[in-house]
Amino acid sequence: MKPNFSLRLRVFNLNCWGIPYLSKHLADRLKRLGDFLNMESFDLALLEEVGLCSTGTEPSLGGWQLGAVRPPVRSPKENPSKHILPPTPTPQQGLAFSGVIGSGLCVFSKHPIQELTQHVYTLNGYPYMIHHGDWFCGKAVGLLVLHLSGLVLNTYVTHVGETNGAWGLGLGAGAGAGSADLRWKDRAPLAVLPGSRIGQDLLHAEYSRQKDIYLAHRVAQAWELAQFIHHTSKKADVILLCGDLNMHPKDLGCRLLKEWTGLRDAFLETQDFEGSEEGYTMVPKNCYVSQQDLGPFPVGIRIDYVLYKAVSGFYISCKTLKTTTGHDPSGGTPLSDHEALMATLYVRHSPPQPNPSLTHGPAERSPLVSVLREAWTELGLGLVQACWWTTFTGYVISLGLLFLLLLCVLAAGEGAKEAAILLWTPSVGLVLVAGAIYLFHLQETKCFNKARAELQHMLRKAREAQNLGPESPPALHLGQQERDRAEEQ
Amino acid sequence: MKPNFSLRLRVFNLNCWGIPYLSKHLADRLKRLGDFLNMESFDLALLEEVGLCSTGTEPSLGGWQLGAVRPPVRSPKENPSKHILPPTPTPQQGLAFSGVIGSGLCVFSKHPIQELTQHVYTLNGYPYMIHHGDWFCGKAVGLLVLHLSGLVLNTYVTHVGETNGAWGLGLGAGAGAGSADLRWKDRAPLAVLPGSRIGQDLLHAEYSRQKDIYLAHRVAQAWELAQFIHHTSKKADVILLCGDLNMHPKDLGCRLLKEWTGLRDAFLETQDFEGSEEGYTMVPKNCYVSQQDLGPFPVGIRIDYVLYKAVSGFYISCKTLKTTTGHDPSGGTPLSDHEALMATLYVRHSPPQPNPSLTHGPAERSPLVSVLREAWTELGLGLVQACWWTTFTGYVISLGLLFLLLLCVLAAGEGAKEAAILLWTPSVGLVLVAGAIYLFHLQETKCFNKARAELQHMLRKAREAQNLGPESPPALHLGQQERDRAEEQ
Repeated sequence: MKPNFSLRLRVFNLNCWGIPYLSKHLADRLKRLGDFLNMESFDLALLEEVGLCSTGTEPSLGGWQLGAVRPPVRSPKENPSKHILPPTPTPQQGLAFSGVIGSGLCVFSKHPIQELTQHVYTLNGYPYMIHHGDWFCGKAVGLLVLHLSGLVLNTYVTHVGETNGAWGLGLGAGAGAGSADLRWKDRAPLAVLPGSRIGQDLLHAEYSRQKDIYLAHRVAQAWELAQFIHHTSKKADVILLCGDLNMHPKDLGCRLLKEWTGLRDAFLETQDFEGSEEGYTMVPKNCYVSQQDLGPFPVGIRIDYVLYKAVSGFYISCKTLKTTTGHDPSGGTPLSDHEALMATLYVRHSPPQPNPSLTHGPAERSPLVSVLREAWTELGLGLVQACWWTTFTGYVISLGLLFLLLLCVLAAGEGAKEAAILLWTPSVGLVLVAGAIYLFHLQETKCFNKARAELQHMLRKAREAQNLGPESPPALHLGQQERDRAEEQ
Repeated sequence: MKPNFSLRLRVFNLNCWGIPYLSKHLADRLKRLGDFLNMESFDLALLEEVGLCSTGTEPSLGGWQLGAVRPPVRSPKENPSKHILPPTPTPQQGLAFSGVIGSGLCVFSKHPIQELTQHVYTLNGYPYMIHHGDWFCGKAVGLLVLHLSGLVLNTYVTHVGETNGAWGLGLGAGAGAGSADLRWKDRAPLAVLPGSRIGQDLLHAEYSRQKDIYLAHRVAQAWELAQFIHHTSKKADVILLCGDLNMHPKDLGCRLLKEWTGLRDAFLETQDFEGSEEGYTMVPKNCYVSQQDLGPFPVGIRIDYVLYKAVSGFYISCKTLKTTTGHDPSGGTPLSDHEALMATLYVRHSPPQPNPSLTHGPAERSPLVSVLREAWTELGLGLVQACWWTTFTGYVISLGLLFLLLLCVLAAGEGAKEAAILLWTPSVGLVLVAGAIYLFHLQETKCFNKARAELQHMLRKAREAQNLGPESPPALHLGQQERDRAEEQ
């Protein structure tokens, strides 16, 4: 039995917009971020979009080497981002998880990190959409296991894929996105797209789902994230998830994540909130945010989160939640184009709670079943789209090969030899590009199928449980492990 | 506290060599496999390399739809593989996990599957090495959670990447692999490669590590597999891993997996073994196996495994282990080019065991530390190789672009216009191919770095623990969770 205790956790979260060469005033912002973290002494600082430069065999993040190693001693002038690490006497650890460019996840902990791992989302956009950058970043979720006074804390940090957003529209429609504003970053340009297909979600009523090619990808990522948390946190006493989800609170992916994992939103639960209106984490007051970025949400959007839960036997509450409001904490130039979240959480011992599904019966599970079904349908639409692309590119490849054959015949003759040779290059290019697109969409169909299979399985379990009545609850979500834990204690 | 009980588990494992159009006598073999499974009524049948044909929006495996759904009622003539599912009255469930072509993992369970998920390995070979097929398969590990009489059983099924083996040598050196023998499958042609760099491993002494381009990939996959099991099994009472690891028992990846997870090898632990010599799962007697496949191991190789462990409070033992011996179980044509494994396991309640690391002290951890260090070094060599490729392809891209510029200049003039136009196509192709190779090796470096960072972290924890002495053991491997469980019970 674990000791009776109370624990305070101070958590900092920020999407740093830290892409070398592309983000504005990066060195200055990182320096000020480091100074601020030094001053405040958070327990955990969870950062996203921290650009990594691969300069040899070991990529480094400022003065930090990748992989939770202690910071090498360097001269202060060597790198402006050295200040990210507060030089306090407590054991500080940093790590960064990476994709092709690097997923940009980075964590600093005041407490020793016991274990760490990472899961890269299987659907990460398309490599041929270079201007979106998602595939190259390798969006991921990182897990750190900390042991604090006998309590097991699983901390997750993630950055979920963006929508095609401003670039998609700007480049596609040739309007709106001036080249001066084309910055490589993962803000939520979702807002830029007009029209919507998500009927239930008023926030998105005016979006065009047809333009947001990554919607199904984000739902799939949300499900993968939820599953990763579900399966890796079964021994954890407290679960903490911070990051840039690139989803509004009522978006399908966000609801799916919360329903499946049982995580609660610090903004909705906090006893004391101070910061931007409605907890927005991208606000027009921020000088790095243009109205174009916010689109139909001129007052701001909330896409960065602190989510948490404790298993039965423990109780977690958010005492205070602060956000920056378009400036840095001291009122100067902002630290990023996103606003920082600063939460003070308290974990306490509590008597085991009664099993909610036993007391409330099957009706209690309806929101979960409903969101699972909705996600299943959404992924089905993504699947249809992916299948359309595989069929289309399959035809293009066939026609391209036929055309190449024709060109060979023409080149062998004398009539149109030069024209045939000239057309050879674009034809080969067409076939190659179509082949690559075909392959990636084929992989996409498999990923959608896999996620749908898992969702379908869970829906079936839910239906079985409903047929059996409230006396035989299924292992339907994390509530199950809370019940198990309650039994043990 | 869970009830005192004893549980028998009958497990079947087979790499089915079930690639449509490419594997010999597939329909017949699958039919006989189904008949056999019907007759024997195993608790779990874990199959690898079950080819999936995507024929629309829902891929199907014989009469089975993807995703643990019940089998649709079909006429017996519709598909020869329908027999894979034994039509017993108990709830039978099947599922398949997929990659681009499909990872080919497939599980049939007599007991209801509570939860399921999948993790695709981040390093899966290279897409441009089409003839190896690894990247297209998307090698993965699948997890099924079963609840049996109150016991939580985590079953993992996996297929780890092959070596470049026979094809690599055959196609590379232009010798040995006749086109008639070029079959698309994941056997372990490792054995074909002469010469080795793994000094410690006598089995591999004669291999050429330089030729086995996937060695580091398999070590990385083994680490990912071990980490996946480690992090997702913390609440499990019994852990079972079956599959084609494509590694010999003393290979680095195999040792890493066993040391990190604490899994034990059924072949080494069984009370009663019946089958092929040394438990080989590819034997020359099998008519689908050529001597070329076995290379320097003419008597056979053991690359398929049943591994298991129970946490403290439970005891698992292997009563019998059988393998087929180059024929099907009734002495006919074999079911696959691999041999099937059939294990009868018993799980019993047992008093919590004393903490091994507390009784044995830091020296006990040496094999683990040693294998972690070895893996870290191996991945470092893979990393160097990957960096070399990024540098090389970087140069090729630069030179290719310069050459294209030169061709443009020549084409603008009159002197060598036709030659310039003719050279345009191969040059563009070269740049595109080099670009793709560059990107994939860049991603590879990130994956190696990530795995090495995790290994480095664990090594540091181990060193810290050794400095602190045996009184403060680190959370170094699954032993930790056994200790926690022991404390709770």
